[in-house]
Amino acid sequence: MLTLHGFAYSNYYNIVKHALLEKGVAFEEHTVYTTDPELLQVSPTGKVPAITTDNGAHLSETTAILEYLEEAYPQHPLLPQDTVARAKVRQIIKCLELYIELSTRRLLPAALMGVTPDPQVIEEVSATVARGVAALNELSEFRPFLCGDTLTLADIYCRYAMAIPQLVGPKVLGMDIVAQIQGLPALMERLAASEVSKRVDSDMRANQDEFMQKIRERQNP
Amino acid sequence: MLTLHGFAYSNYYNIVKHALLEKGVAFEEHTVYTTDPELLQVSPTGKVPAITTDNGAHLSETTAILEYLEEAYPQHPLLPQDTVARAKVRQIIKCLELYIELSTRRLLPAALMGVTPDPQVIEEVSATVARGVAALNELSEFRPFLCGDTLTLADIYCRYAMAIPQLVGPKVLGMDIVAQIQGLPALMERLAASEVSKRVDSDMRANQDEFMQKIRERQNP
Repeated sequence: MLTLHGFAYSNYYNIVKHALLEKGVAFEEHTVYTTDPELLQVSPTGKVPAITTDNGAHLSETTAILEYLEEAYPQHPLLPQDTVARAKVRQIIKCLELYIELSTRRLLPAALMGVTPDPQVIEEVSATVARGVAALNELSEFRPFLCGDTLTLADIYCRYAMAIPQLVGPKVLGMDIVAQIQGLPALMERLAASEVSKRVDSDMRANQDEFMQKIRERQNP
Repeated sequence: MLTLHGFAYSNYYNIVKHALLEKGVAFEEHTVYTTDPELLQVSPTGKVPAITTDNGAHLSETTAILEYLEEAYPQHPLLPQDTVARAKVRQIIKCLELYIELSTRRLLPAALMGVTPDPQVIEEVSATVARGVAALNELSEFRPFLCGDTLTLADIYCRYAMAIPQLVGPKVLGMDIVAQIQGLPALMERLAASEVSKRVDSDMRANQDEFMQKIRERQNP
């Protein structure tokens, strides 16, 4: 059986977990934290998530795993059939990743631990987020999903990629990034109401205390 | 005919251009710089490259374009057939993108304009590059290509992604990042010897003066 490695408090872990659940792929979860040396055996960059396939191959990096799942498990496809439509899904995911998630992640220490952020970093992040917001406003369809009338990888990626901006936006940048994308607040609510989202969110909450403990251990080893 | 938008001095532009040439896809080049407002009509984040497909659809973000080309033009495939092997190509590309290219790019102002880099940024970049180098040493096969005996998107991506670390590594970090990946210096030489690489490199050199002029205009508008 496919194994998903990582921990339920990780938003990237939850992107892959959501896709697996949505597709109905059988999998087991192996809880491992970024501080555990054994993670390097399945994820050479030491990042979460990773998977071990039915045949024993280890794969890491969220988008590489998502593409693998689409190819290895064609049931309940999360990419459209049309080649341009598929490219649009990947384009939106890339905008979410580079311009929204990874850029606001730079301000996570400021949001979580009250570290005073460097004004230049604030400026860089704000400029990058503005590009991402503009692109998402242009590319997203909201009919009612990001890429049309069917749930795709873009919606799943978006739901969990927005975790960091939802934290960092109000606390550090003084802005609600989700609200700046027309149609996204309603879509986020709709996505949150699904049974798959409820399970992922419930598992995430159940993992919170242990995750926070791991963070404290790392800071005060 | 497919149109490639951007400029020949851009390493991301050259990834897509190399793939198009390798696949034998007919295309025309439309030179546009990131300072040109018209770029936003084809690339909503204002980044290079973008393409306009035969059917008039605009697509941007390098990896989204590469996947599109593989699907729309199956000739001369640049991804293996096997699903796990395809995932490995994408995993390597992601390591190159996040841990090597985008991280060292943060030190580009230091390498190009002599701006004194923030010691904390140096530390962050060094740690991220170390993860990427470790992952690439583990994932790469060098038989003689990164993912086996056939050229894939990983080799093409690598050739141009290494442009920034090759500049920033010696000048700012005091290290030769390519040399830290066993087998990569030889592969880089082999890749550079191909007719496609020679054409891309020649076009890049021919664009250098105009690109530098655009940079100066941006700094002193």
